[in-house]
Amino acid sequence: MEKKKNISMAVIKRLPKYHRYLNELLKNDVDRISSKELGEKIGFTASQIRQDLNCFGDFGQQGYGYNVRELSSKISTILGLDNVHNGVIVGAGNIGQAIANYTRFGKMSFDLKGIFDANPKLIGIKIRDISIEDIDDLDKFLANNKIDIGVVCVPRINAQKVCDVLVAGGIKAIWNFAPVDLVVPDDVIVENVHLSESLLTLIYLLHNK
Amino acid sequence: MEKKKNISMAVIKRLPKYHRYLNELLKNDVDRISSKELGEKIGFTASQIRQDLNCFGDFGQQGYGYNVRELSSKISTILGLDNVHNGVIVGAGNIGQAIANYTRFGKMSFDLKGIFDANPKLIGIKIRDISIEDIDDLDKFLANNKIDIGVVCVPRINAQKVCDVLVAGGIKAIWNFAPVDLVVPDDVIVENVHLSESLLTLIYLLHNK
Repeated sequence: MEKKKNISMAVIKRLPKYHRYLNELLKNDVDRISSKELGEKIGFTASQIRQDLNCFGDFGQQGYGYNVRELSSKISTILGLDNVHNGVIVGAGNIGQAIANYTRFGKMSFDLKGIFDANPKLIGIKIRDISIEDIDDLDKFLANNKIDIGVVCVPRINAQKVCDVLVAGGIKAIWNFAPVDLVVPDDVIVENVHLSESLLTLIYLLHNK
Repeated sequence: MEKKKNISMAVIKRLPKYHRYLNELLKNDVDRISSKELGEKIGFTASQIRQDLNCFGDFGQQGYGYNVRELSSKISTILGLDNVHNGVIVGAGNIGQAIANYTRFGKMSFDLKGIFDANPKLIGIKIRDISIEDIDDLDKFLANNKIDIGVVCVPRINAQKVCDVLVAGGIKAIWNFAPVDLVVPDDVIVENVHLSESLLTLIYLLHNK
C-alpha cells in the first residue's frame, strides 16, 4: 500500500488506457503479450509500460510477457471496478441525457440511480427506466440512498450550487461537465470534462500546426 | 512567430482556461486585473500566469496589470477564434446529438454544417435546422463544402473508417469522442474526449484517496 502514495497523476491517467487495450486483447482471444508489443499498440515505449505497471505490483515475467487476462483483471481491481458505484446525474439537458443513455458506463461499475432536473417539462420523463426527478428533491434522495458519484450537467451558473448539494449529501466524487471550476472540500474529488476547452485546444492546434 | 514553436502542450492546454476566465471578468465589467488576482481566480500562481502569457507576446504592464478586454481579445486571436470553423458531426447518437444541440460551441467559432449517420431511422430528422444525412454521402459533402473540423461520435468499431473518410475529404482537425485512438497522417490533429477514461480516473481516485 505504501507504494500507491507515490503514483503520479500521469501514470493514473494512463491506467484507463491500459484497461481499454487489455479488454480489446481479451476480446480478440490474445492470451499473453510482451511489454514491447503492448507498447506498439498503445503508443508507449516498452520501458514506460514496465515502469507504469511496476507502480502497482509485480506483473509479467521476463521472457513470457504479461498474461492478458490476469493483468486486465488486476488493473480492473486497481481501478476500483470490483465495486459498484452508484451515481446520480443532475441536469437532464443534452449532455445529461447523453450520459444517462450511455450504457457503456454500466460496464465500468457505474450504476445510475437517479436523474434530476429543475425543468418541470422534463420531470417525470423516463430515461432507461429512470424517471427524471425534481432537483429540489436531490438532498432528500441523497439522504436516503448511498450515492458515490454525482454527475454535474447543469448550466455553468447553477453548477456550484448543485455541487454544494451533492457534497452536503455526502458525495465524494464529482464528474463535472459544466464549464466552471468547482470549489469542493479537500476530501472530494472532481474530474472535469470541459468540452469547450477541448474544442478550443483543437482549434488552436489547427491554427498553429 | 519563432516563439510559437516552443510553446508546450501544457501551456496550450491552459489557454482555453484563460479565455474562459477573462470572458467571465468581461461579463462582470472588470476592466483590469493583476496577474496575482487572475492567479487567485484560476488557481495558478502569478508567476505562472506571467510566464504563460509571455509565450504569446507582451501583455500587461507592471503596476497596472492586464487590460481584460485587450487580453481576452488577444487570446481569442491566438486561439484562432477570429476565423469561423465549419464542422460536421458524424454519428447522431447520444453524444452526437448532444454536441449538435450545444449552442455554446457557436460562440467558439464552430459552425455546424452537417450531421451524418448510418441509421435510416435518423436520416432526415432535423437538429437545429440541420437534417441528418446518410453517412454514405459524407465524402460527397466534404468534396463540395469547405469543412475544417470533423466530430467523430460513432461507435468504436466504425470510428477509424469514419476518420479515414474525413481525412480523405481534406479535414485536418478531428474531435474524437469514440473510445479508440485514431490513426491519422502527421498533418491531421486529433483531440480526444474519452469519457470512459475520465470516469475510470474518477473511480480510481475515489478508491485511492
